[in-house]
Amino acid sequence: MASLSRPPRTAPRGEGRTAPPGEAGLLDAAIAVMAEHGYHGTSVREIAVRAGVSPAALYHHFPSKQQVLVTIMERGIEALLDRTRTALAAAGPDPVDRLRALVEVQVLFHLEDQRGTLLGTSELRALEEPVRGPHRAKRAEQQRMFDGVIADGVAAGVFGTPLPEEAARAIVVMCTGVAGWYSPRGRLSRAEVVRRYQRLALDMVGAQR
Amino acid sequence: MASLSRPPRTAPRGEGRTAPPGEAGLLDAAIAVMAEHGYHGTSVREIAVRAGVSPAALYHHFPSKQQVLVTIMERGIEALLDRTRTALAAAGPDPVDRLRALVEVQVLFHLEDQRGTLLGTSELRALEEPVRGPHRAKRAEQQRMFDGVIADGVAAGVFGTPLPEEAARAIVVMCTGVAGWYSPRGRLSRAEVVRRYQRLALDMVGAQR
Repeated sequence: MASLSRPPRTAPRGEGRTAPPGEAGLLDAAIAVMAEHGYHGTSVREIAVRAGVSPAALYHHFPSKQQVLVTIMERGIEALLDRTRTALAAAGPDPVDRLRALVEVQVLFHLEDQRGTLLGTSELRALEEPVRGPHRAKRAEQQRMFDGVIADGVAAGVFGTPLPEEAARAIVVMCTGVAGWYSPRGRLSRAEVVRRYQRLALDMVGAQR
Repeated sequence: MASLSRPPRTAPRGEGRTAPPGEAGLLDAAIAVMAEHGYHGTSVREIAVRAGVSPAALYHHFPSKQQVLVTIMERGIEALLDRTRTALAAAGPDPVDRLRALVEVQVLFHLEDQRGTLLGTSELRALEEPVRGPHRAKRAEQQRMFDGVIADGVAAGVFGTPLPEEAARAIVVMCTGVAGWYSPRGRLSRAEVVRRYQRLALDMVGAQR
């Protein structure tokens, strides 16, 4: 669920010293190690080693491994919600345009950070309370934006599906699923995947061609 | 990917002795523990404790934790392939019937063993060679049965989608995804989920209503 950019290093490597990677670098390292071994199979020490820092340096940023996961997952879902709300606000009132906008954000978000978003999906179970409940509520809020757009389209007679709720869930699942199969070395650009998934989603809700 | 039935115990618990659970019971225990902590976060000892046996007893059946995972994943995909082939053979020549049959198997299989199939999806990365490659090939074979039915339907003029390959993948992803959200305590029976996903899949491929 995360899309984290690594900030530029403030000091060059070399001379036996390593510039600390900063918080974003630590999170990138955590995503990389956890993607291989899972949350429970990863130690704070392994994250630190991957990031090129000491465990103490990691603890300077994050009090625990759980807090690393919380940061990755919460930033991810917040970024996704934010982009989705922005896209809907820009899309105007036409249900077809609004569904296209939702699919574009959902697909691109999961293509831009395949490893991070796959981790976000598979390690939801590892998130502890009191974060887990509110985090799940945010994911449900993301789903509800799809539910709302499709229900509105059906109410307006633009979408013909008799199964708006199931279609909304299936569309979120299939768009999220691109993180699991897409290869940048394959024949489809990200933009082309978006275009094709917009078409599939519109067909599934029974939009007029 | 597994659908493993636990055989009846051959001796009652009690008297300070525990009847060994047998191979299926060990695999059930492994799925339960790995679903919580992931493959890399699970030890052979934890699987044995969950199954109520000693680690030595587990090693009697499986030489390693990897072999436990291999057994779960391979039995799962073999069972899914077998059920899918059987369903297709019984479905007859109509592409609509054939797609319905594929969706029914894919949805039911993932609803009947939600925890095992979720594990199968998330721990594919943990499968080691030389098993991993052939296992992935079997998953691709499952996908190709969907590809073939949808391509045949398009060729026959029964399905109107301009995106048969993408539709086939999206259908597999959305049917597999039911393992992640379905609750037996919710308002939909398994049979009703099947019926609705058949409708969604037929709409996505542009089947005539």
